[in-house]
Amino acid sequence: MTLKYYHAEPAANSLKSMIPLKEKGIPFESVYIDLHEFEQHSEWFVKLNPEGQVPVLEHNGVVITHTTVINEYLEDVFPEIPLRPYDPVGKARVRYWNKFVDENVTPFMSMHGWHHMIGAIARGIEPDEFEKLLERIPLPDQRRKWAAARSGFSEAELANAIDKIVYACAKMEATLAQSPWLAGDMYTTADINFFAMCGMTVEIRFPALEVAANYPRLVEWRTRMEARPAVRSALAMPNHTDPKVRNWSRQVR
Amino acid sequence: MTLKYYHAEPAANSLKSMIPLKEKGIPFESVYIDLHEFEQHSEWFVKLNPEGQVPVLEHNGVVITHTTVINEYLEDVFPEIPLRPYDPVGKARVRYWNKFVDENVTPFMSMHGWHHMIGAIARGIEPDEFEKLLERIPLPDQRRKWAAARSGFSEAELANAIDKIVYACAKMEATLAQSPWLAGDMYTTADINFFAMCGMTVEIRFPALEVAANYPRLVEWRTRMEARPAVRSALAMPNHTDPKVRNWSRQVR
Repeated sequence: MTLKYYHAEPAANSLKSMIPLKEKGIPFESVYIDLHEFEQHSEWFVKLNPEGQVPVLEHNGVVITHTTVINEYLEDVFPEIPLRPYDPVGKARVRYWNKFVDENVTPFMSMHGWHHMIGAIARGIEPDEFEKLLERIPLPDQRRKWAAARSGFSEAELANAIDKIVYACAKMEATLAQSPWLAGDMYTTADINFFAMCGMTVEIRFPALEVAANYPRLVEWRTRMEARPAVRSALAMPNHTDPKVRNWSRQVR
Repeated sequence: MTLKYYHAEPAANSLKSMIPLKEKGIPFESVYIDLHEFEQHSEWFVKLNPEGQVPVLEHNGVVITHTTVINEYLEDVFPEIPLRPYDPVGKARVRYWNKFVDENVTPFMSMHGWHHMIGAIARGIEPDEFEKLLERIPLPDQRRKWAAARSGFSEAELANAIDKIVYACAKMEATLAQSPWLAGDMYTTADINFFAMCGMTVEIRFPALEVAANYPRLVEWRTRMEARPAVRSALAMPNHTDPKVRNWSRQVR
């Protein structure tokens, strides 16, 4: 068996499928993709994933993309240490939450991430070079996102994104009053998704939300997440992001 | 066993989980929810689904919401007539497409649907009554969508939505050059998703896209979908939408 995981820094999408690999103790080859050098748009990588995005799982020559799909795949193929319940109702709860995070949390955390971090990178590139960079991006949406990050998102867009993040934190807080984990008694890919895309960084990135005061259960849950050996091992993977750019995030060193 | 399906007209979301029920030949109780009377925001319905949205599957007292989650649940509980492959790679392909449709097609078809159909309904309501209606909508996003439908979406938003629909049709056409169905040799929930949310109506709703000329495989695929007894049976379910509003859609009678 060969299992390769192509990924960038241990944050967001790259972290989201790294944690399950670590939790399950599956031996895999880590292939670091340097987003700072736009390696995800390079010829060899686009041959692997025509959408030009990380992460990618390659299992015995089969390529699986998109983290929620990868995480379901890992449950199907490596069920020994499960991160998804065996019963259909439990599965539906996990999928409800993963869908909620994918559609109502990730795009909005991502917008602020792009605004603060990718925007800084994009504005540091000369106009000619930036045009060439855009041409190499396979997905039209990603091209638009890079262009928007360079010019900056509108105040209305950023404010709407904050509304969505506040809604998600309140929903999470209410859920954690009912059960220790997002989808019930079991730690699942839903927790990993919310952690990687929002829970891990929301407090440090959005001081105005007063996360510790308003969402104490979320903070307690995050502490439990961070104490897990698999999560610590995933977070210890290489991080080459320039600290000047990274200092908006929790991963400052 | 009791299985109830709460749904509106046989289109979009309500159709998307109706087709699998019909394909699998599972006996279920159909409960029609009258969106024209805003029954989805009524007290009894919000008790069933706090998000105030159709459709809802109720199976032995357990409530499952969101059509992609419902369709996975139906596969897990009623696998005898499968609409999802048994092998993990096949499952991943189906999930890739369902995710693509959910995130890159549905919101944009929906925006045009809201603009043309819900907008007409919303503008027909007196301001005071409309305010009361908004107050009863549980999800903030849905409140915003109703308000936006009344005032109309911007030209830029509508044009961006068209770009997304064109991208999806081209992607679909390229895929159908490789395999008879979206996720390979097997007819799956991915086909049902794309059909219900876009494929069924895109030609009649967007004449400017010249669907027949530009996407002949999509049209051939749609014809195969429409010929299926289960699809015909689902499409024959009650449709109470005012023809004046409906005449933007394929379901005109």
